[in-house]
Amino acid sequence: MKARIGIIGTGWVGTSVAFSTLLAGHGRELWLHDTRAAVAEGEALDLTDGAAFYPPCEVRAVPLAQMRDADVVVLAAGRNGRPDESRLDLLRDNARIAAGMGVALKGFAGIVIVVTNPVDVLTRVVQAASGLPPERVMGTGTLLDTARLRERLAVRLGVATQSVHAQVVGEHGDSSVPLWSGARVGGTALRDWPGWQAEDEAALTQQVRRAAYEVIQRKGATNHAIGLVTAELIGCIVNDERRLLPVSRVQDNGVALSLPALVGAAGALEATAPAMDRAERAALVASSDLLDRAFGSLAG
Amino acid sequence: MKARIGIIGTGWVGTSVAFSTLLAGHGRELWLHDTRAAVAEGEALDLTDGAAFYPPCEVRAVPLAQMRDADVVVLAAGRNGRPDESRLDLLRDNARIAAGMGVALKGFAGIVIVVTNPVDVLTRVVQAASGLPPERVMGTGTLLDTARLRERLAVRLGVATQSVHAQVVGEHGDSSVPLWSGARVGGTALRDWPGWQAEDEAALTQQVRRAAYEVIQRKGATNHAIGLVTAELIGCIVNDERRLLPVSRVQDNGVALSLPALVGAAGALEATAPAMDRAERAALVASSDLLDRAFGSLAG
Amino acid sequence: MKARIGIIGTGWVGTSVAFSTLLAGHGRELWLHDTRAAVAEGEALDLTDGAAFYPPCEVRAVPLAQMRDADVVVLAAGRNGRPDESRLDLLRDNARIAAGMGVALKGFAGIVIVVTNPVDVLTRVVQAASGLPPERVMGTGTLLDTARLRERLAVRLGVATQSVHAQVVGEHGDSSVPLWSGARVGGTALRDWPGWQAEDEAALTQQVRRAAYEVIQRKGATNHAIGLVTAELIGCIVNDERRLLPVSRVQDNGVALSLPALVGAAGALEATAPAMDRAERAALVASSDLLDRAFGSLAG
Amino acid sequence: MKARIGIIGTGWVGTSVAFSTLLAGHGRELWLHDTRAAVAEGEALDLTDGAAFYPPCEVRAVPLAQMRDADVVVLAAGRNGRPDESRLDLLRDNARIAAGMGVALKGFAGIVIVVTNPVDVLTRVVQAASGLPPERVMGTGTLLDTARLRERLAVRLGVATQSVHAQVVGEHGDSSVPLWSGARVGGTALRDWPGWQAEDEAALTQQVRRAAYEVIQRKGATNHAIGLVTAELIGCIVNDERRLLPVSRVQDNGVALSLPALVGAAGALEATAPAMDRAERAALVASSDLLDRAFGSLAG
Repeated sequence: MKARIGIIGTGWVGTSVAFSTLLAGHGRELWLHDTRAAVAEGEALDLTDGAAFYPPCEVRAVPLAQMRDADVVVLAAGRNGRPDESRLDLLRDNARIAAGMGVALKGFAGIVIVVTNPVDVLTRVVQAASGLPPERVMGTGTLLDTARLRERLAVRLGVATQSVHAQVVGEHGDSSVPLWSGARVGGTALRDWPGWQAEDEAALTQQVRRAAYEVIQRKGATNHAIGLVTAELIGCIVNDERRLLPVSRVQDNGVALSLPALVGAAGALEATAPAMDRAERAALVASSDLLDRAFGSLAG
Repeated sequence: MKARIGIIGTGWVGTSVAFSTLLAGHGRELWLHDTRAAVAEGEALDLTDGAAFYPPCEVRAVPLAQMRDADVVVLAAGRNGRPDESRLDLLRDNARIAAGMGVALKGFAGIVIVVTNPVDVLTRVVQAASGLPPERVMGTGTLLDTARLRERLAVRLGVATQSVHAQVVGEHGDSSVPLWSGARVGGTALRDWPGWQAEDEAALTQQVRRAAYEVIQRKGATNHAIGLVTAELIGCIVNDERRLLPVSRVQDNGVALSLPALVGAAGALEATAPAMDRAERAALVASSDLLDRAFGSLAG
Repeated sequence: MKARIGIIGTGWVGTSVAFSTLLAGHGRELWLHDTRAAVAEGEALDLTDGAAFYPPCEVRAVPLAQMRDADVVVLAAGRNGRPDESRLDLLRDNARIAAGMGVALKGFAGIVIVVTNPVDVLTRVVQAASGLPPERVMGTGTLLDTARLRERLAVRLGVATQSVHAQVVGEHGDSSVPLWSGARVGGTALRDWPGWQAEDEAALTQQVRRAAYEVIQRKGATNHAIGLVTAELIGCIVNDERRLLPVSRVQDNGVALSLPALVGAAGALEATAPAMDRAERAALVASSDLLDRAFGSLAG
Repeated sequence: MKARIGIIGTGWVGTSVAFSTLLAGHGRELWLHDTRAAVAEGEALDLTDGAAFYPPCEVRAVPLAQMRDADVVVLAAGRNGRPDESRLDLLRDNARIAAGMGVALKGFAGIVIVVTNPVDVLTRVVQAASGLPPERVMGTGTLLDTARLRERLAVRLGVATQSVHAQVVGEHGDSSVPLWSGARVGGTALRDWPGWQAEDEAALTQQVRRAAYEVIQRKGATNHAIGLVTAELIGCIVNDERRLLPVSRVQDNGVALSLPALVGAAGALEATAPAMDRAERAALVASSDLLDRAFGSLAG
């Protein structure tokens, strides 16, 4: 009675999503697809060999058309970023692939999670190409940036990650917007936390924005954290958890970017906007404009 | 390399703590003690019969003196509340037992968790009788009230419990203080949440305060939720999680009550006080005074 | 997309089943029913108060009639055994209750798990009264005896429970039949294990048969281990695990007793009989005859 | 109070071990080392970014020398097999690396797990070079072959993997020896299972031996299943589980190969040899001879 999860693209990222999802026990069937059919098959075989070590789930490679029967489809196809390029540099190559996937998913009854970068623009591309309602096409967006921010704050303050409440919104990329004004540690505003200083914010913002580059520079790609984040999203959907999470989706202004959404079986429903100060609000508008221009550049 | 957990008192509550702790896998050895030695033995046998279904842990009944060798000792001895009495009515009977336990734990090197009600006064009694530093004698306090508040808010708002951040401080009892001014849903202040109304606060405060009575009235005692809450605390300590949790401990003013503390291997360390509005602050002072008088009444 | 689990009877055993099931995350809805309606409500409230500490599941008290809409129904109603009586002494009182439940479940589309003792006779009573196919009415049977045997063997041999493969079949009670001839430790026959002696078998058989009495004598009832065992069965059904487990069901000869069955979404399907030596086979026949007479005595 | 786990070699396999270990929560600190220091750093950063999604564990890159302070060290350094070569073809390159690691671990107080292929010869190389007692240098050996065999049997028979008891011993490679004579399904000998045929054994033996090649042919390497298997071993050691598992270690005859060992905090202790028929015994001798010659060839 659990879900059928499909993953399109079994490179580093898609494979990490598959592994995290299996260990979390979110699916009853896990379907893998890649244009390199042998690779998807190889991943399915390798994962199946470990079946004794995760909750029951059948893993197999499937043709693209079968993805329409899944409950949740993860789009992880496309190439990775390179150390010397921004996420937007990846745009044209991956937008073409994403549009094709969107068309293939017209009339799909489940939820799509876009992981490939630049994730915000591709979320908009897939939503437009598929014609699915905006809440059923979400991108992992700043959920990963948020995890990074909380982890770094936790280390910096010497408390558990679970006790740090802070969110990053906007683009998953260089214009991302950490919401410092609303960040809290336990029940205390971060800005009232003993020893917290304004300059910490600029430094941490930089660290979170640079995090992917630091990893890519060293190992050529990122995959573990994004795999875990995506599996968490899958769990929210499959179990209809209705958690408020910053994920990317086409917003009221037509641009796809991350704001807190209510994530559950119905997808990523719009939620009340978080409290923001003037600077944060301006940064969010700038991020939205930047993403809108990036999307527009595809038409050129 | 995991912990030795001791539980004193194997009535409904102590047994529920034992069961929750075993399933969570927090201990390598679980020691049970009760003045009714046969009951503790029976519980150990019954729990051991299910050993195939939880992570490896040896469960056995032990004499009281052995508790000094544990890493964490839970005090769940004492009688339960009755539908027709307030938590403070239980005081004299249970204080005598708690003082005896405190004396038995003089020089103890681990952490004590007091569960028996009235938990705040007994936490103070145990700390005084044992001479242990205040951070190493914590009561479950309003951690359970907080869990109840968050659960009810989650249902009321239609979001996941994890997305509701709200705390109850002060007495675990009728003078408990929910901190509405700082409550948040995702990154939004609860008081800015669409549809939230001031009268909801009074109603929910009543519900949370009445929760134990409602359960006791129907089944004669509470045990499951307090068992889960205590196991969570044990996990925080054993894994040195350093989470900010409202637990009871002797505070700066000498009174034991709940405020957010940093819970980890060192016990419940004092943390920055949470933001409170004027009414909340006054209610907290009143709760502290009430608890101080209750403690004072023991001397009479 | 997970299951609706119903539990009829919220005494010590039913409540323990509920708690174990919640922590294992097997259900999306957990329904409790008791003839003492307030008790079922109190249990539901208490369990719900701990919702932050287990996977999402709605718990509530329901009228008996609603159980027909569940995917799995656990029958834990009836009174417990007393130190001075055998399981069969409980028969008449609990058979009357079980027959009523069986009638109430006529046409039920899910799986029934009988937990109340004497479990074998009651499994037969419920199957007959409900008219459901034999594979859809299973009793926990010797699954608990098997867990006890494996646990004791593991301790005796100094190896993990998972490495001990041994089964108890027949009656869940004094005529239970441990299958020593087929017991194995890792890949080695137990009887070839260094230091293993024939007299160990008689002693352990006694210990396993006496286990429930030892617990009841000390704490008045058994509940933890049977709760864990039942939750494990629920998981097998809900996840269609198709494990071979000794559970009670009406067998080919019309008597309900435990033999290994293939437990999954379809219930407890008959499986190949385990290897038995001549003595074991005779003991199983005797156990079956005893159970048949016990059932027959109800007609008197 | 949990363990410090070290992983040497952060290629596909070492990284998969790291990820599986983190999600299983076996360590309190996870140390990564690679001759490509930046890669180990990148992996540590990427894994740390996902810290919110696994039990508390600090991950970081460390110099080789620090591994001596770990409780368990996993050797995953070396290159992968290629589709066109047998595991023994990898020998010379990887033996040189393994010997260096062994020397670096002289006097080490913990447990070494060798994962790099050809795992049996390298286990012997590391044991000899380190001078550690044989039980403290184990190779993952046929634990993976055993997982593969059980998974395939489970699918073939339509039962859960947990209900299939079968072991592969000898070389982790082309001369591996599945012990068909002792294989069981539930409590029944596999060879008595309805519909089981002698020719199934030859076919499945081939499938299990070919499994790695099938995966490598398609995706270039194997990593997921070996990662899960290794994490399972780490858990057995860290929690002192004392499970009987087929792992490789230097046996009485001086050759390292897999036989069931008692795996716990003390390492892989020798256990009673499993029952084998004449053909299986002969195949095991042949496997041992082959591995002895392979080791001997290093001296040439």
